[in-house]
Amino acid sequence: MIIGYGRFGQITGRLLNACGFGTTLLERNAEQLDLVRRYGIEAYYGDASREDLLRAAGAKNARLVILTLSDQAASLEIIAQLQKHFPHLIILARARNRMHQYALMEAGVKYIFRETVDSALAIGEKALILLGLSPMQARRAARKFKQHDERMLEALFPYWRDETQHIAQARIYREQLLQALQQDRRDKDLHLDHYWEEAQPETEKP
Amino acid sequence: MIIGYGRFGQITGRLLNACGFGTTLLERNAEQLDLVRRYGIEAYYGDASREDLLRAAGAKNARLVILTLSDQAASLEIIAQLQKHFPHLIILARARNRMHQYALMEAGVKYIFRETVDSALAIGEKALILLGLSPMQARRAARKFKQHDERMLEALFPYWRDETQHIAQARIYREQLLQALQQDRRDKDLHLDHYWEEAQPETEKP
Repeated sequence: MIIGYGRFGQITGRLLNACGFGTTLLERNAEQLDLVRRYGIEAYYGDASREDLLRAAGAKNARLVILTLSDQAASLEIIAQLQKHFPHLIILARARNRMHQYALMEAGVKYIFRETVDSALAIGEKALILLGLSPMQARRAARKFKQHDERMLEALFPYWRDETQHIAQARIYREQLLQALQQDRRDKDLHLDHYWEEAQPETEKP
Repeated sequence: MIIGYGRFGQITGRLLNACGFGTTLLERNAEQLDLVRRYGIEAYYGDASREDLLRAAGAKNARLVILTLSDQAASLEIIAQLQKHFPHLIILARARNRMHQYALMEAGVKYIFRETVDSALAIGEKALILLGLSPMQARRAARKFKQHDERMLEALFPYWRDETQHIAQARIYREQLLQALQQDRRDKDLHLDHYWEEAQPETEKP
């Protein structure tokens, strides 16, 4: 079951369909629903925080629910309903930003995906390649960054309602990330292969 | 040079810094600027569509410019200025959606990243694993989907201003994607390894 069928939900849904899994779609924006119907896609219309709609759409028999709303309040409301009436469902949720992610964590959601993190890292990875790193170096740096960012988020979770503490802790973690990635480059320089040699400034070929 | 320093630009910028590359940040939202300054980060304040600000921030000596605005009109305006006054700069740009991407393609931008595609695929990949695919199957399916989606976007580019044509062509491409992924699963079943066996429905362990 996919709740919210905008640009985000469509990609997720099409991937699942392409792999042979059926999806039930719920969308509460009539205009959006109309648009996807013109592309030949059917979806339930309505507010997914209503138990009767969830039931009619077959929440009882669904295995997973994927929440693709970027609206924090709306997503939390739906999650409360799902947890109350359909506790068997595994919830995967999109988060708009860090604060939304913390709120979802607090609500007990286990699988959370911040909506722009991966694309922001993809653009960074491409930039690193254009600046002279090898694709493998760039890939590795982005992956390491993401792992570190996820650990940081876990560690900062207790402070999420206290901005002063949050800022202080975040600075420490950022400094650690910097050191970890620099250390990683040095280790590779010394020992392993040519992938982590220092990137040479080179003239760009536009 | 990074234009726009919200949740997107911050991730990209921190990755580049962690890899030893200096960044110059431009942000036109005073509140956002104030927030990042509390985290100890300095950025230029102002409207990056103004040539004098771009010049003051050092656009002449920059190698790349990363445009992280999700606002289509604003990003196109800045790109026009960059192309006119600093044609040496390689431009990487965030796109909000498919239409924004088409507009950037038309403006001649080569490196474009739709902001939620990668996270939407990441949530789909996780869902596939929870539904019984192996991590490697899920990874492979998401990667194939993305490649196909990118090819589809290239192919549909000529039709982007004609909704009827666009819809008709998109349907054909979606059907092709479905078949490609299904064929891929069958091939793997028959020949190569255990990674692509049909996913077995199994009871979820919440």
